[in-house]
Amino acid sequence: MIEPFRLTATEARARLAEGSLTARALVESCLARIAARDGDLRAWLAISDKALQEADRLDALPVERRGLLHGLPIGVKDVFDTADLPTTHNSPLYQGFRPAADAPSVDILRAHGAIVLGKTDTTEFAAAGRNAATANPHDLSRTPGGSSAGSAAAVADCHVPLALATQTGGSTIRPASFCGIYGFKPSAGLVSREGVKLYAISFDTVGWYGRCIQDIALLATAYGIVEPLTPPPAPDARLSVGLTFGPYADELEPESVAALGIAAERLRAAGHAVETIDLPQDFGQLDLWHRTILHREGAQAFRNLALRHGSALHDDFHHRVENRDGRSLADLKAAHDGAARAQTDFDAIAAGYDLVLAPSAPGIAPLGRAPGNPLFNAMWTLLRVPCLNLPVTGTGSGMPVGVTALAQRHDDAALLARAAILAPTLGAEDGPPPATAGRPE
Amino acid sequence: MIEPFRLTATEARARLAEGSLTARALVESCLARIAARDGDLRAWLAISDKALQEADRLDALPVERRGLLHGLPIGVKDVFDTADLPTTHNSPLYQGFRPAADAPSVDILRAHGAIVLGKTDTTEFAAAGRNAATANPHDLSRTPGGSSAGSAAAVADCHVPLALATQTGGSTIRPASFCGIYGFKPSAGLVSREGVKLYAISFDTVGWYGRCIQDIALLATAYGIVEPLTPPPAPDARLSVGLTFGPYADELEPESVAALGIAAERLRAAGHAVETIDLPQDFGQLDLWHRTILHREGAQAFRNLALRHGSALHDDFHHRVENRDGRSLADLKAAHDGAARAQTDFDAIAAGYDLVLAPSAPGIAPLGRAPGNPLFNAMWTLLRVPCLNLPVTGTGSGMPVGVTALAQRHDDAALLARAAILAPTLGAEDGPPPATAGRPE
Repeated sequence: MIEPFRLTATEARARLAEGSLTARALVESCLARIAARDGDLRAWLAISDKALQEADRLDALPVERRGLLHGLPIGVKDVFDTADLPTTHNSPLYQGFRPAADAPSVDILRAHGAIVLGKTDTTEFAAAGRNAATANPHDLSRTPGGSSAGSAAAVADCHVPLALATQTGGSTIRPASFCGIYGFKPSAGLVSREGVKLYAISFDTVGWYGRCIQDIALLATAYGIVEPLTPPPAPDARLSVGLTFGPYADELEPESVAALGIAAERLRAAGHAVETIDLPQDFGQLDLWHRTILHREGAQAFRNLALRHGSALHDDFHHRVENRDGRSLADLKAAHDGAARAQTDFDAIAAGYDLVLAPSAPGIAPLGRAPGNPLFNAMWTLLRVPCLNLPVTGTGSGMPVGVTALAQRHDDAALLARAAILAPTLGAEDGPPPATAGRPE
Repeated sequence: MIEPFRLTATEARARLAEGSLTARALVESCLARIAARDGDLRAWLAISDKALQEADRLDALPVERRGLLHGLPIGVKDVFDTADLPTTHNSPLYQGFRPAADAPSVDILRAHGAIVLGKTDTTEFAAAGRNAATANPHDLSRTPGGSSAGSAAAVADCHVPLALATQTGGSTIRPASFCGIYGFKPSAGLVSREGVKLYAISFDTVGWYGRCIQDIALLATAYGIVEPLTPPPAPDARLSVGLTFGPYADELEPESVAALGIAAERLRAAGHAVETIDLPQDFGQLDLWHRTILHREGAQAFRNLALRHGSALHDDFHHRVENRDGRSLADLKAAHDGAARAQTDFDAIAAGYDLVLAPSAPGIAPLGRAPGNPLFNAMWTLLRVPCLNLPVTGTGSGMPVGVTALAQRHDDAALLARAAILAPTLGAEDGPPPATAGRPE
């Protein structure tokens, strides 16, 4: 029998429901996996000492009182407030900081029966400053990507089936691509961002990771993201897929070009229609607009820390507060207006396809611990659309690569349903996606 | 000599700087005022027992280490996290709740030397549910307006010179109008909303109150809102003012019509150019778009409380979570797209004038404790523009009425500078604005 820590959330749910697995056995298995692996991986900043107790409480619940996420262990990026674990933001200024309440996005998962196993490492404040110490489970000399480094690595290495992330630029999708897992950033505004460290109010979005697309949809259901904007597909539907390398195609490395090419090939072979799409000319400015809003809003987010802590605060944050880039209010206004136009333009394009595929990162995970380049993610965050990383197997580099499935704003539920049809095709050749097989043990 | 509690922040600053007033004397005077008045007014949910100690600490600071807000008492609406005072959101679910840290917007004021005197009453979660118990200081049988009821009443009744508010619909501007004080809601995104109870992520904005426009500008400076988008005026400039009753003019009561009429008359008499402007046809939908986004985003904000607390949570919040209005995702998308178009349309209109004046409320404060109608505020919150309530004297009703000064997005600093030229003209006939004179004692 498969060790419990290797189960996806969907698989574990089935076993928990039929009584062949207990929450305690699952938590114990995950804790043992962490004990065996995290010395090298360093995904975790804190492990809960209450998880087994919580598992016992859940195991004792009568079946009719069990929630959607009954007994499932989750990792939580250490920028989410948690009342029973420190919340450090990986900042020297917040060591041992203990919020008085869980962030609503965490509280919702607990209310559904999930067990918070611990807090995962992150780029400081999910923004800049200090890197996460976490390694990529596919090659310890490489980054798992950031800022949601620990959550992505923990899911990829089977420490937990599910983990919470955030995305302000590319902090959910890029680590998913680098680690070979599924990662989802919903449309802006669909999950409460209360109690999550603020960086850029226009962009900060709660996201999450799983090792199969059904697990991504499971958390979407827990958050109430179930209503499709456009009709969801029949299970055997042939889909129309728009393909784009995006406005920064020149910056792509061969592995990401290959991933998108392989994806297109396999989808066509499976009977789906794949068409290359052209993006409007001014999409070349999306990254500039994103960075302008990011840095000006970041100035507000870190202003109190800059006033209070002087040089004890990393200079990256003083950079934002002092607007050292010299971005004017006119630049900011132009960025907001350009983004608003581009949002409706992209929605109109995406509405012409069942989904759109784009690169998830410039290439494979780079060496070191720097979080990687958000160039292929930030534009979609700016456009406020749902983004889903789908692993693509067979690119031949020995490291994972993914592609991003996109839809128009608020069409999250239909995007997840459509991507569930395509996902097995993209991960086909190697069987299960790379995160659950073929990694160094 | 004037009693210290009657001083505006700007007046108190001058006396503190010259040494004719101490922070202790000012805090003692405000606390005595509260003790004398708050039995009737009920502006406060909690009073700090550390304010005098903090005043002594500040009085002992050498002059060169004193901040911009040195020694100034402020009230804080009870939806802002404060580490040394409970944060109840006026909700039965949060009685005695004590956050681990101040909201950054509070921390910034403290870092500049302000003294948090206590927490002020609010509509539950600054949203719906339970009303504030606060009375209007001009007529105890009437509401001070909501949701920032306690902050507005406390400033109007001279309990504190300054207080923090929030606005999601009209929660800062309308109470300012009802209480005869200056109230400011900056452009969206200019002050950190971290640590402030979430209702609608697209709208929630930190605002504040004072009894003169210089006090409003003082807090804007503390928050770093100092860079004008358009050139600020010369001090003796004759301004061009656009006047609009807005798309809901039919809903205006005589007092608000009178206030805008008197304002226009006095401005013309003072040599300013006043021109009635037409708003685009589809501005009639602004309130619908606002309410659609408000309720759908509110569903996310209160989801965890609905899951956790069942009928112990006020039904107003279950209404949002369950989307009982039946607003679809297509409605939500149309609302966001309509708002984005209207934002650029209004910016273009506002750019043609030094500032725009509009009603601040349907009329005077209604009887009772319900917070009043946000119809004349919500549209500007949707448009993300800076809004400033300016009291207008001489409308003859015996209750205060104000008008809202508006500018294009991000032109906050220039708006404050221009409004400072007009404010004495609007409050001219009765001398100082009604908040500091003529109230029942």
